[in-house]
Amino acid sequence: MLGIWNLNKRSYFHMKDLTIGIIGGTGRMGQRLVSFFEDAGYQTLIASRRTSLRPLDLSQKSDVVVLSVPINVVEEIIAEIGPHIREDSLLMDVSSLKTRVMELMLKHTKSSVIGTHPLFGPNTRSIKNHTVVLCPGRGDKWFAWLTNLLKEKGVKVKITTPEEHDRMMSIVQGLTHLSTIALAYTMKTLNVNIDESLEYATPIYRLKLNIMGRLFAQNLSLYRDIEILNPYVREVATTFLHSVNKIAKMVEEGDMDKFAECLETIGDFVGDFRPIGLKETNRLFEEMLDNKDTF
Amino acid sequence: MLGIWNLNKRSYFHMKDLTIGIIGGTGRMGQRLVSFFEDAGYQTLIASRRTSLRPLDLSQKSDVVVLSVPINVVEEIIAEIGPHIREDSLLMDVSSLKTRVMELMLKHTKSSVIGTHPLFGPNTRSIKNHTVVLCPGRGDKWFAWLTNLLKEKGVKVKITTPEEHDRMMSIVQGLTHLSTIALAYTMKTLNVNIDESLEYATPIYRLKLNIMGRLFAQNLSLYRDIEILNPYVREVATTFLHSVNKIAKMVEEGDMDKFAECLETIGDFVGDFRPIGLKETNRLFEEMLDNKDTF
Repeated sequence: MLGIWNLNKRSYFHMKDLTIGIIGGTGRMGQRLVSFFEDAGYQTLIASRRTSLRPLDLSQKSDVVVLSVPINVVEEIIAEIGPHIREDSLLMDVSSLKTRVMELMLKHTKSSVIGTHPLFGPNTRSIKNHTVVLCPGRGDKWFAWLTNLLKEKGVKVKITTPEEHDRMMSIVQGLTHLSTIALAYTMKTLNVNIDESLEYATPIYRLKLNIMGRLFAQNLSLYRDIEILNPYVREVATTFLHSVNKIAKMVEEGDMDKFAECLETIGDFVGDFRPIGLKETNRLFEEMLDNKDTF
Repeated sequence: MLGIWNLNKRSYFHMKDLTIGIIGGTGRMGQRLVSFFEDAGYQTLIASRRTSLRPLDLSQKSDVVVLSVPINVVEEIIAEIGPHIREDSLLMDVSSLKTRVMELMLKHTKSSVIGTHPLFGPNTRSIKNHTVVLCPGRGDKWFAWLTNLLKEKGVKVKITTPEEHDRMMSIVQGLTHLSTIALAYTMKTLNVNIDESLEYATPIYRLKLNIMGRLFAQNLSLYRDIEILNPYVREVATTFLHSVNKIAKMVEEGDMDKFAECLETIGDFVGDFRPIGLKETNRLFEEMLDNKDTF
């Protein structure tokens, strides 16, 4: 597939000569990207606060410029390097939020632009079967190149608009992490002794503790950005609050019938995911219990 | 171990002749108990709404009477059969709540009494490595018998008081399930299309959907009982509401520093469980992704 188009004087035989410049390449996600592109046979350049190579120099030397820096830094970097990126190059980012970053990329450069969001973190051993969201910005050729590269590596590609991405992420990341944060905050407020509670752990409780442990083991500024900077999360947070309010009220009132009816209605919503979730969690619990020594 | 004591005229050689009577033995948990005791070599009797054998007859014919019925039914059954259970027998239950049920068992019978709570559901293939909570009620001999039997089968036994059990369960089950119910309720209120969202699923989101699916695939009256009948859950639900309120407010205000500080504080609370949770979820994700076809 790489051979069907000719990138500005390069024949497809020389595609492997492409230089991929990663800004933020010494961070954990940046390192992941470096090894991804190097494993695919490309040359890489790295610029970060810790390298002598500056982002501006990197962007002039690279065929593909990848932004792998926190949201609060990405804006000024785009403004700085955008005008200097070659028009035949590609500028792409890997931020969790797409609308704002893509607007800025399209505004500050004339190069091709793709917004990407890998739906996994730097702890992922293999990216096979994971999903990467792609938001086409400008330029079809680079888009075909990136899509093919990801698919070759077994990555599931989901193509969408920046707005749709951010709306979906307000649920997939915003609400999901908010519920974990709220659970942990409640346990903290109640002064729960986690070690003591583990003696009474059900598999589901253990799993929820694991999810909680994972979130707080990672870069907390990423979770802050996901919750605060995605404008769609506000409605999600308000709805979450209203839902907890209704449920807490039912518990307080002790109305068995009302609560049972509420559970039935939610169950209908969960629908077909009930047998799927049951089957998948059964498998995970077997995995957890079979390997209890190492868990 | 079974031979060290002599149960009312039986020699230990005849211990396997014990008859275990299971009330509610046609339910899913009841069936699980029947196969557990039969696999251990004991004879079983079953009484339920669907059997001709009545609970009263069963209790007179059994050396061990096991109550495996919903909380709202267990109270009247105890009052009915309690006075007719032989004094040298054992009465035990498997309810998720211990204080109230044990009070009633101790009040209505003169037999030995043990409150038990298996911390797993009927979907569990093997009970090895799972935990069963035991609350001693009356009688040492039967307590030794049950403890040994469970340990022989690789079950982790946790011995505690009914009050301590219920207090711990208000977190381990009460809060855990409340957070799942609240998450599902929020998604229902926001009218999230689950199938559509799956195209954007991160591993954690998929895991949370699985946990949700599992809960709503099961007997909802059990979850109703756990939330409404455990008196300690009220404070837990109120604290959960206050926590979500604080977090939603921070999202609404968009105060990056305040939210970051809050996350740091919660992270300190999660403490040593951060690397544990990271490691365990990494393993589970590999399991999930390696078997994506069957998942």
